[in-house]
Amino acid sequence: MATEEPELMQKIVSLCKRRGFVFQSSEIYGGLRSAYDYGPMGVELKRNLMNEWWTAMVHSREDIYGLDASIVMHPEVWRSSGHLANFTDPLVDCQVCQERFRADKAPRKAAGEDAPIELADKGRAKAALEKLSEQLADQGIELERKGKVLHGAKAGDRGYVCSNCGSPFLSAERDFNGMFRTSLGAVDPLAGVIAAVQAGVERGDDPKALRAAVDAVISESAVYLRPETAQGMFVQFLNIQQSMAAKVPFGIAQMGKSFRNEVTVEHFIFRSCEFEQMEMEYFVEPGKGREALAYWKDQRMKWWQSIGLSPEKLTFREHDPTELAHYSDGTFDIEYQFPWGWDELEGIASRTNYDLSAHAKGSGKKLVYHDAEAIDPETGKKGWRYVPHVVEPAAGATRGVLAVLCNAYAEEPGDEEGKGARTVLRLHPRLAPIKCAILPLVRKDGMDDTARKVADEFFKQGVSAKLDMQHAIGRRYARHDEIGTPYCLTIDGQTAEDETVTIRYRDDRRQDRIKIAAAVDVVREALREGRE
Amino acid sequence: MATEEPELMQKIVSLCKRRGFVFQSSEIYGGLRSAYDYGPMGVELKRNLMNEWWTAMVHSREDIYGLDASIVMHPEVWRSSGHLANFTDPLVDCQVCQERFRADKAPRKAAGEDAPIELADKGRAKAALEKLSEQLADQGIELERKGKVLHGAKAGDRGYVCSNCGSPFLSAERDFNGMFRTSLGAVDPLAGVIAAVQAGVERGDDPKALRAAVDAVISESAVYLRPETAQGMFVQFLNIQQSMAAKVPFGIAQMGKSFRNEVTVEHFIFRSCEFEQMEMEYFVEPGKGREALAYWKDQRMKWWQSIGLSPEKLTFREHDPTELAHYSDGTFDIEYQFPWGWDELEGIASRTNYDLSAHAKGSGKKLVYHDAEAIDPETGKKGWRYVPHVVEPAAGATRGVLAVLCNAYAEEPGDEEGKGARTVLRLHPRLAPIKCAILPLVRKDGMDDTARKVADEFFKQGVSAKLDMQHAIGRRYARHDEIGTPYCLTIDGQTAEDETVTIRYRDDRRQDRIKIAAAVDVVREALREGRE
Repeated sequence: MATEEPELMQKIVSLCKRRGFVFQSSEIYGGLRSAYDYGPMGVELKRNLMNEWWTAMVHSREDIYGLDASIVMHPEVWRSSGHLANFTDPLVDCQVCQERFRADKAPRKAAGEDAPIELADKGRAKAALEKLSEQLADQGIELERKGKVLHGAKAGDRGYVCSNCGSPFLSAERDFNGMFRTSLGAVDPLAGVIAAVQAGVERGDDPKALRAAVDAVISESAVYLRPETAQGMFVQFLNIQQSMAAKVPFGIAQMGKSFRNEVTVEHFIFRSCEFEQMEMEYFVEPGKGREALAYWKDQRMKWWQSIGLSPEKLTFREHDPTELAHYSDGTFDIEYQFPWGWDELEGIASRTNYDLSAHAKGSGKKLVYHDAEAIDPETGKKGWRYVPHVVEPAAGATRGVLAVLCNAYAEEPGDEEGKGARTVLRLHPRLAPIKCAILPLVRKDGMDDTARKVADEFFKQGVSAKLDMQHAIGRRYARHDEIGTPYCLTIDGQTAEDETVTIRYRDDRRQDRIKIAAAVDVVREALREGRE
Repeated sequence: MATEEPELMQKIVSLCKRRGFVFQSSEIYGGLRSAYDYGPMGVELKRNLMNEWWTAMVHSREDIYGLDASIVMHPEVWRSSGHLANFTDPLVDCQVCQERFRADKAPRKAAGEDAPIELADKGRAKAALEKLSEQLADQGIELERKGKVLHGAKAGDRGYVCSNCGSPFLSAERDFNGMFRTSLGAVDPLAGVIAAVQAGVERGDDPKALRAAVDAVISESAVYLRPETAQGMFVQFLNIQQSMAAKVPFGIAQMGKSFRNEVTVEHFIFRSCEFEQMEMEYFVEPGKGREALAYWKDQRMKWWQSIGLSPEKLTFREHDPTELAHYSDGTFDIEYQFPWGWDELEGIASRTNYDLSAHAKGSGKKLVYHDAEAIDPETGKKGWRYVPHVVEPAAGATRGVLAVLCNAYAEEPGDEEGKGARTVLRLHPRLAPIKCAILPLVRKDGMDDTARKVADEFFKQGVSAKLDMQHAIGRRYARHDEIGTPYCLTIDGQTAEDETVTIRYRDDRRQDRIKIAAAVDVVREALREGRE
């Protein structure tokens, strides 16, 4: 049972579907809850957001190089990185409601604390009580039902209870690897698996031996969908450093899809099994990691604000020593105040030389940098070979889109009779799917032809504008408010005569009569906003 | 054994690695032959190419809507589309050289025709002869070895021989599904598979029953990586039509990754297991498919030329009735003359109403369009509900990048002593990874600061320029020729005084002294070239 989303989230989800931002994947087949499709407006918003990142990180800098690595990589990459061994969640089944959940994300409860169990309705609570009473009789635990809640259970010493019903009656924890596995090559691994199990059964193998035989067959052709884009940058460190003659400090940046077999998908596009990341690995001299961490913390916070997120809805959260990865000497999350609370948008981690060292060890290749000018601190002589340290700002593009939508969404009540009430997306002009709508007042008297000419003029000037002739002008304004179009230009009979249009501003609905050329300038100016 | 690539391809592969266009995936781990990574120059080239498509198909038109659907879709999508049943290749193993190949792509030979078998070397030929002689003795076939070739075999009535060694001694054909399968959800399917096989063995199941039991377990959580982007458009047809209030004729366009477990990967990035597509589904009234096919044939050919492919290296190939899909009433390929011969860049197919009908049947949803104005040909009355027909221009983005590289690659011999010899990529300015390089003559006397100011000026004017200070000016020119930078601006002592720079033109190496502002205009003008 999914928790009910806050009302604001429900409204955003509804607007996203109605206006062509986000649809559920494969909806006509009942949908795939773990994936989403970006419609005509959503694909532009996501592209705009990711292009902003690319411009800030790659195009406008001299020290960062782009990369687009494949999603399927050599399986040894994940062995070296630790993902095959460590990328596992401790999974638990609830013995009352059968929910399967991550132990590390479950509600905390101290041992002996009251643990009321809340089922979906009275009927289920009765059934659960009957079943539990039998099982618990010999333990001397007695439960009592009030409506749909069972009282009398106490939390055990695991420190958590079921994330759905609150029950402390749980299965053992077991590991679950979050990477999607598939098989590369012309051989069907299932035929081999069947043969291996058959042979094992005939030999009288025990379950562990059977499993090992199956794993051996599978591993011959197993490959994984990347659960993060970062490893591509480490694996191609040498190729990029050499082909670009890059000098430390420098960075490698990548955007793209990653895949995690998430046990819990939640909050619309915030956590899904298929998502997009924007990650950058910044390579520095040993000892310079903390300084780079401070620099990137600052840069990245400024960037989220530059695309329109409200400063008061953004905060840093420093990882405390218990949650810090063993190799990291400092990690900060940038969190956004989503409708359900503060949650992560980006992580900025100082990772020391852990990643390059791990891949050097795994691949047998030397992943080092040679600085001919620097003094080697060990020898005191000129010429220093070292494994660079890394600072990684790793942002979620998909959840960035959600933050932008949440931040931009506004409802205006209108006057006392509700007249003029509207919903509006106050998107930054650079993120808006449509920068400027060209609206002929009516579709006759040559106004549609004039409108097309105005649209062409914008296009020629390199400013994206979209002709829109459907429905009455009021309905068109309302639609463009809902998709966040910052400017509407209305073309009327006068336009052909004196090259003037009515410009309507999304945010305050103000209308002015101006020359077409002036309108081009207004839009162009707005697109530069917040970019030095 | 892969066929040797033509010399030109080898040079391109080498330049791609040396200059940061394309690296082999996971190269430090020995590489994954079926996937490639796009380096700092390649990622820009690919983005530029795909952005050009998006601009032409979505931004500059009023009748086409964008989409970005998930890679993992509901498994029923692939059952309805036919991919689960029909997306299979007939695979064959050669009993002489063990090559595994696709029967439908193998060299054709008539029954009884001589089929000489060519091994890699004399030693292997000797070994093969010995093994074959034994097997063939009772069939009365006698082989004779000359060097590394065995003579005396004849093609059988299959109509083909081994694609590697030419042998007619082959295994039976068997089907191989080209989709990558993985498993979605918190349950490990292998545990279930082991249990199913165990139970089957104990029951005494035959191989077929065992396989069925395993398939049943797997299918509970099986999902597939999309082998094409097209199905996303059909599945979201209704959501897009309704949220956009789209009127037929209209199109849905999508770019993105697709995955095919190709038996043969070949020609560098031309055929790999992970690749990018640019596909558009154009929905028209029944009966208007052929007309739309003619229109899109023309449009798409013009587009490939607009991004710089030479007209004489492009051609149409019409599918003859034997290769046409049963539902298609016409398909054309746009082929490019690659170094190994003519090969497909894009397919433009008239697909009737096959796709929407198949998904309507599979999902139980009505995928129809209602035209309130049109006359229903059956009733003769106003208001027509119909399943739209589809024309699909489906282009390969990855192979588009390769065609562009092949077309742009040139070597110039220089004078009789070889002086002035160079390699140059004559990329269209809109595709060039760097539009304009800003080169301080030396890194002193304030020239580096001035250069930075010039770069800022370009950036402010919205034209991408890259500062480059490494190595002597001659080496920098050579590097920018090789990565296809159309303009280099050299900053010298005079620049700070009179705002002039030396502009060097890539294609003819001409140099002019011009004002900085004039240089901005030159670059901006070039970026508009061929766009109408």
